[in-house]
Amino acid sequence: MTTLEDRELIFDDWLKLLDNGKFAQLKKEINEHNEVNIAAFFDEIPLDKKLFVFRLLTKDNAADVFSFMDSDTQELIVNSITDNEVRHIVDELSLDDAVDFLSEVPANLVTRILRNTDEEKRKLINQFLNYPDDSAGSIMTIEFVQFNKELTVQKAMEQLRRTGIDKETIYSCYVVDKRRVLVGMVSLRTLILADDNAKVKDIMEDDVIFVRTLDDQEDIANLFKKYGLIALPVVDNELRLVGIITVDDIVDVIEQENTEDIEKMSALIPSEDEYLKTSVVSLAKNRVVWLLVLMISGTLSSVIITSFQGVLASSVILASLFPILMGTGGNAGSQASTLIIRGMAVGEIETSDILKVIWKELRVGMVTGIALGFVNFIRLFLIGNVPAKLNLTVSFSMMCTVILAKSIGCTLPILAKKLKFDPAIMAGPLITTVVDCLALLIFFTSVQTFVL
Amino acid sequence: MTTLEDRELIFDDWLKLLDNGKFAQLKKEINEHNEVNIAAFFDEIPLDKKLFVFRLLTKDNAADVFSFMDSDTQELIVNSITDNEVRHIVDELSLDDAVDFLSEVPANLVTRILRNTDEEKRKLINQFLNYPDDSAGSIMTIEFVQFNKELTVQKAMEQLRRTGIDKETIYSCYVVDKRRVLVGMVSLRTLILADDNAKVKDIMEDDVIFVRTLDDQEDIANLFKKYGLIALPVVDNELRLVGIITVDDIVDVIEQENTEDIEKMSALIPSEDEYLKTSVVSLAKNRVVWLLVLMISGTLSSVIITSFQGVLASSVILASLFPILMGTGGNAGSQASTLIIRGMAVGEIETSDILKVIWKELRVGMVTGIALGFVNFIRLFLIGNVPAKLNLTVSFSMMCTVILAKSIGCTLPILAKKLKFDPAIMAGPLITTVVDCLALLIFFTSVQTFVL
Repeated sequence: MTTLEDRELIFDDWLKLLDNGKFAQLKKEINEHNEVNIAAFFDEIPLDKKLFVFRLLTKDNAADVFSFMDSDTQELIVNSITDNEVRHIVDELSLDDAVDFLSEVPANLVTRILRNTDEEKRKLINQFLNYPDDSAGSIMTIEFVQFNKELTVQKAMEQLRRTGIDKETIYSCYVVDKRRVLVGMVSLRTLILADDNAKVKDIMEDDVIFVRTLDDQEDIANLFKKYGLIALPVVDNELRLVGIITVDDIVDVIEQENTEDIEKMSALIPSEDEYLKTSVVSLAKNRVVWLLVLMISGTLSSVIITSFQGVLASSVILASLFPILMGTGGNAGSQASTLIIRGMAVGEIETSDILKVIWKELRVGMVTGIALGFVNFIRLFLIGNVPAKLNLTVSFSMMCTVILAKSIGCTLPILAKKLKFDPAIMAGPLITTVVDCLALLIFFTSVQTFVL
Repeated sequence: MTTLEDRELIFDDWLKLLDNGKFAQLKKEINEHNEVNIAAFFDEIPLDKKLFVFRLLTKDNAADVFSFMDSDTQELIVNSITDNEVRHIVDELSLDDAVDFLSEVPANLVTRILRNTDEEKRKLINQFLNYPDDSAGSIMTIEFVQFNKELTVQKAMEQLRRTGIDKETIYSCYVVDKRRVLVGMVSLRTLILADDNAKVKDIMEDDVIFVRTLDDQEDIANLFKKYGLIALPVVDNELRLVGIITVDDIVDVIEQENTEDIEKMSALIPSEDEYLKTSVVSLAKNRVVWLLVLMISGTLSSVIITSFQGVLASSVILASLFPILMGTGGNAGSQASTLIIRGMAVGEIETSDILKVIWKELRVGMVTGIALGFVNFIRLFLIGNVPAKLNLTVSFSMMCTVILAKSIGCTLPILAKKLKFDPAIMAGPLITTVVDCLALLIFFTSVQTFVL
């Protein structure tokens, strides 16, 4: 049994065996281990010895371990081994692992690998490489179990024993008619509990949830969550079964979609690349676009300040008061937008809830606005350089800004979704820019009206 | 087969049947459907008819449907049915569904339900209710399959057929010795492909990953992701098998942990309650704490502005220039902190990478800083009311602010993690507050040095 802490110790042992030239023992120990751990071990091996250690793996292990390596190590290995070895690995890789790998490596390597793949698999790989990113087709596997609906349980179990070894899962089996149209699903649990002579079509579940090859992976992830599924069939336009998606792939999809949302919410252009492996230029490119957009939109706040020059000239203290108002308004608005964006992403809030949401945020805005206005009054009173009348005006502006910020923060993401934009861009940075202008307008107008 | 769109149509049909008093037909149609869909239908039924429809469910369906209802509907139902009906539902609920339900309802209801539960189950439920939130114990199920290691495959399959029907999963079976200590794992796939006379201990996987009852759910989710698991055994301090965690529960954990991070990153106190069901007071409480902290920390920026009163008095235009500088700096810093926080959450960045990260962000800061400074110069030049020398100074400050913001944005989350704080709080709002002060210092010092 291994925990993650144990693993580090095991890796240290292996590295010692490697250094001391005890290759036979290393070979024995490595091959007895879990393929995920072996793949992780490759991160620890010095560059010039990776290939050597890879060749210590048994044929059976090599492809499994390969599928769990990061793409840099995969590339290094494939660049150093013979065509024969490449052929063996690609043959052993499941189709979706092969496609994942091929979509990460340079084109010349793809050509070399496809040259070493048999005709049928090559055709399938090409078809998969053509499914759009983020579609069901791009994440499904074709290694699934399908039964003809007329089969008996006994024959089905025989088929499973004969062909099941290579399938991604044998726990959800799909039932098709003679045109390969999906007609039902039967779990292995049901099969082993059923009578040998029963027909598959009589014990199958015919109320099956399915998706189509071009459906979006985010919607699919939501189906998995909603129904607690472990696998989901994928059909083509004629409702013929072409693949399945398993829950372990969905876990990755969920993480990826969450990362994407989080990045959008922080004014970043989402990227699937690992931070440490992304070049400085790419990182800068993903950031500078939104920074420029926000900076230029920020010009409006400068224009507002300039247009109230007269008010500002009346007291230098004023300039020290509005940044905190803008900051608090921005934070208050971001909080509201975050809750709404997230609520919509996990399916708790629908666009039709817009009035309920606004009514809620107005009240939350009142409560927090009054609290913040009150504390702000005390804060400025304690600092002592702000006249009481101005203090009251600023604290009143604080309250109004917070209420407005909450209302705008909750409305913009819902409107974005209604207009088919991604609500995640209506988050902190953009909300702050909008709220900044409103905070300034409220502040200067109040000062002009009540103080001057 | 049902898609989500179909479902709405089916619900409409059912509501019509309900309105028209066609109860026999409604009963037949409902009970043929998927329990998740039936539970979702309860959201559409008028309050006064929910109980009536619930009683149309067959005994077998009632508990299943109940487990998928939201807690408000569950409470409504339990409050209206007889003790006998309660007993039946709780008996049929799997232990973890029962515990989930009980941890959501008021104490008086818990008492009534536990009174209607048999002794053994009551003891187990109480034990589960005592596991800390977010621990392995709180998310595991005790409905798992375990074999004695001396069993033959044939006997194991017989045991599975006899007892498997009530288990959460029969696809991962665990092997224990006579003291119930976990010694291995065997998948149903291996079992059905194995020879009937083989012994379980000879075909089992003995390199099993396991967790302990008090392990944190976030770490467990990471194990699932890393190893592509579908189930994971949970052991007590004596390494005895006490439960398993299945991947469908992990999907919920991942969403919950992501929501928590996203909320923390927006200066919210995380809450597990659904937005639309949370009271205004709770929502306000979760928001006002950080708003107050940030507002009060913002005082420092006012102090800085006040201390440069002399500089500010020299030109009213200055007050229109620094908000945009603060805004851009805050956004630039948030971008960096978001990438680092997320990178650490998904395990792509370790605290030991700190120097690599800082070196990367310094370069990204240079590239974006120069771009933003340059565009800012053109922007102010086009607006036309800023003298060239001041414009150069502001644009230079912009560049310095962005570089500094990136460096601070990437450093603080890593430091937080080193100091065992949650890095997610070192996100946008807090970074902005820190960067605001630095932006002001850079701006005023530059103006003082180069312009005045």
